[in-house]
Amino acid sequence: MTKVAAIIGGGVIGGGWAARFALMGWEVRVFDPDPEAERKIGEVMGNAGRVLPMLYEAPMPKRGQITLVGSVVEAVTGADWIQESVPERLDIKHRVIAEIQGACPEGAVLASSTSGFKPSELQDGAARPGQIVVAHPFNPVYLLPLAELVPSAVTSPETVARAKEILTAIGMYPLHVRAEIDAHIADRFLEAVWREALWLVKDGIATTEEIDNAIRYGFGLRWAQMGLFETYRVAGGEAGMRHFMAQFGPCLQWPWTKLTDVPEFTDELVDLIAGQSDKQSGHMGIRDLERLRDNNLVAILRGLKQQGAAAGKLILDHDAMLRGPLGDDVPLVTVRRVVPVDWTDMNGHMNEGRYGQLFSDASEELMTHVGADRAYVEAGNSYFTAETTVKYLNETHAGEDIYVTTRVTRGEGKKLRLWHEMCRASDDAVLATCVQFLLHVSLETRRSCPPLPQVLEAVEALAAHHAEAGA
Amino acid sequence: MTKVAAIIGGGVIGGGWAARFALMGWEVRVFDPDPEAERKIGEVMGNAGRVLPMLYEAPMPKRGQITLVGSVVEAVTGADWIQESVPERLDIKHRVIAEIQGACPEGAVLASSTSGFKPSELQDGAARPGQIVVAHPFNPVYLLPLAELVPSAVTSPETVARAKEILTAIGMYPLHVRAEIDAHIADRFLEAVWREALWLVKDGIATTEEIDNAIRYGFGLRWAQMGLFETYRVAGGEAGMRHFMAQFGPCLQWPWTKLTDVPEFTDELVDLIAGQSDKQSGHMGIRDLERLRDNNLVAILRGLKQQGAAAGKLILDHDAMLRGPLGDDVPLVTVRRVVPVDWTDMNGHMNEGRYGQLFSDASEELMTHVGADRAYVEAGNSYFTAETTVKYLNETHAGEDIYVTTRVTRGEGKKLRLWHEMCRASDDAVLATCVQFLLHVSLETRRSCPPLPQVLEAVEALAAHHAEAGA
Repeated sequence: MTKVAAIIGGGVIGGGWAARFALMGWEVRVFDPDPEAERKIGEVMGNAGRVLPMLYEAPMPKRGQITLVGSVVEAVTGADWIQESVPERLDIKHRVIAEIQGACPEGAVLASSTSGFKPSELQDGAARPGQIVVAHPFNPVYLLPLAELVPSAVTSPETVARAKEILTAIGMYPLHVRAEIDAHIADRFLEAVWREALWLVKDGIATTEEIDNAIRYGFGLRWAQMGLFETYRVAGGEAGMRHFMAQFGPCLQWPWTKLTDVPEFTDELVDLIAGQSDKQSGHMGIRDLERLRDNNLVAILRGLKQQGAAAGKLILDHDAMLRGPLGDDVPLVTVRRVVPVDWTDMNGHMNEGRYGQLFSDASEELMTHVGADRAYVEAGNSYFTAETTVKYLNETHAGEDIYVTTRVTRGEGKKLRLWHEMCRASDDAVLATCVQFLLHVSLETRRSCPPLPQVLEAVEALAAHHAEAGA
Repeated sequence: MTKVAAIIGGGVIGGGWAARFALMGWEVRVFDPDPEAERKIGEVMGNAGRVLPMLYEAPMPKRGQITLVGSVVEAVTGADWIQESVPERLDIKHRVIAEIQGACPEGAVLASSTSGFKPSELQDGAARPGQIVVAHPFNPVYLLPLAELVPSAVTSPETVARAKEILTAIGMYPLHVRAEIDAHIADRFLEAVWREALWLVKDGIATTEEIDNAIRYGFGLRWAQMGLFETYRVAGGEAGMRHFMAQFGPCLQWPWTKLTDVPEFTDELVDLIAGQSDKQSGHMGIRDLERLRDNNLVAILRGLKQQGAAAGKLILDHDAMLRGPLGDDVPLVTVRRVVPVDWTDMNGHMNEGRYGQLFSDASEELMTHVGADRAYVEAGNSYFTAETTVKYLNETHAGEDIYVTTRVTRGEGKKLRLWHEMCRASDDAVLATCVQFLLHVSLETRRSCPPLPQVLEAVEALAAHHAEAGA
């Protein structure tokens, strides 16, 4: 049965949650009294629907519906997950939590997006504190995997376990924060950097653009994949972490930061920063900047996914969770996906070279289907592609839904021939075709040889079935 | 004439500078009294030589020689760039600078890698302070583009201009820091985050691994492409930077960080952190971690390059600087490059799908060669690929030097046929071949039409030349 997420508060964060749940197949009900809520959520969903599917090679679940409802009660009744993202005022949060708990199932997870409050503060006076937990996400919620999951001592272990399971299922990484603390973990760093940055701008040392460049051309690239300590472990070299700390330790006493002081937040400082930021990127609208950010995040995350590393490893694992066995259709549907931004040229057309990659992915799926899977390859056998011919019939663009159908047109002994068609999902137009000749080889001798019997049988059966059912 | 870089101090940072200069075609002389220096620099160069070329589609310059020499004088005589990376002690730096200035050309740039000293401190007592500047890089120097370029008031404008030009030419981004300040810019942030991280570990709130995950699954991904202020500008949404600051401003008064206090750097704290770090990644050697880091950085940087964004834009521009016109060989050499890590599967073989991309790149080069370049396409004309047939003859791996030769085997009217061969540089073995049929189209009517006369002439001339010279 479709699961239900109730989103209370539909701003940038609430909207991001709504989009992620819906794209992962959940039914979503949003309550937000803002008359602009529908438009705002629609815009977040537009962004999210464009890019989140680009992270996956697996077919995405059928999108769930997002419905705006007229009350908290209507939103949370029968919900499995309730996400509270209302303004950061404790009195408002307490009122909303009371209203939620008056109507939501006892077994639901009641999670708060708060960055400023500890779960015990939220639980204060609640009817059922055990179901309340903090799940603090990062913008854009639909692309960044991190959710800081912060229980208090009275949050029930069942709530924590259930929250972890659900966050993982929607492609997030629940970072279990074991001790309640103001601002949880990540925002403490953001706050430290923010204060230091304000000083640098205020003192005229650097502009907002110079500071951004100092981050994104340098340590930002390190942090995106290893974080802080792992980076320093590597920097320590052969001598390791202890050596690094011995080197860096004394610097703690140096006057390198204005840590003991907080800049006054005057109108003048706000004007200075906003003015510099306008100069840096005022020529781009906020929608352009969001698209730029999202495209870059897709490119980074897909790069890391291809390496099986860092946040990309999370997506790789989630991809495997989303993937099911192929059906029995003739021809087989071997790929269902969208064209990601890293497959397109500057004009947004899918690059010629990526067609070959798509057909290669399709035959990989077929291999798994006939039992020539990873284990089979590791045991020393494999099909090698000898020749492919691709005919380009129509253009396609980033974000378009496409699929590939595959027929076995010859499957005898060590020879295998496949016929792939790449189609546009919206109108089933054929965009390209591919004939692929493969030879079965022994990875030991690097010479051709017949497949193992069970694979050969599967290939022959498929060839017969496709010949029979084919036009 | 080949330019000469003198590297004084050959540790991780000095070795990284040496590798970057050598890979960009400079002659490099290193002085380091450490008896292990040769081995250490060889290891850095091994890492750098594997990954830096992977960032480029253009052919790399011919590698310069790295020579270990016996004295500072021998290293700096006749050098164009001198990079000082000796230990962070002002008395040592002063002694080394005096020795350098006793022998180096007056027109050379004398740059220091220091993170701890201001240029005016280095210049104190120097014979020619005007040629001294700080060029503070980030590890790994051979992959990260940032160099903080910090002149003092007495550093000559010529030194600054020359330093910018040279750093740009070797693929770095010189961030001109306009005011001297302790720790320049980036390290102030690193220091703020480091202090906060030490507190979190010391207080038992989070382990080193949890902190790394809090960074790399969340804001680290944002910072790798936009930095701090641009990220917040986007977060502010339609209302912009001013709105964001109004929201975030009050938090400055919240007790979110331990900014007013510095943790005591006890043995106990060092043991705690080193122990957690060992648990996190002690199963991997430092070389494995370096490879992992470098592969991830290549994947991130190439992803951003494909988007033409952030640090990837720097590499794209540098790639264009490195690219020259094609020669007159028959067949034409259209591509010379290494196989990057993002083109290979889990076993390190170049993925079948990427062969098509390589041949697509080769025909793109040929297009530029015959005048069907970007301007031609923007004016409404283009060749579209109608069909490609790839034959796979041999495997190849990440890091292997390859090239593609291209012949025009038919070039009449709107029809163009190319014959590509992909070869291994080490033994000229053919790895794959490709026949490619292209049709000239009008981008306005989306129908085939003859090329403009100058392009058609170039194509016909090439076809005749290749037919005549071909076997």
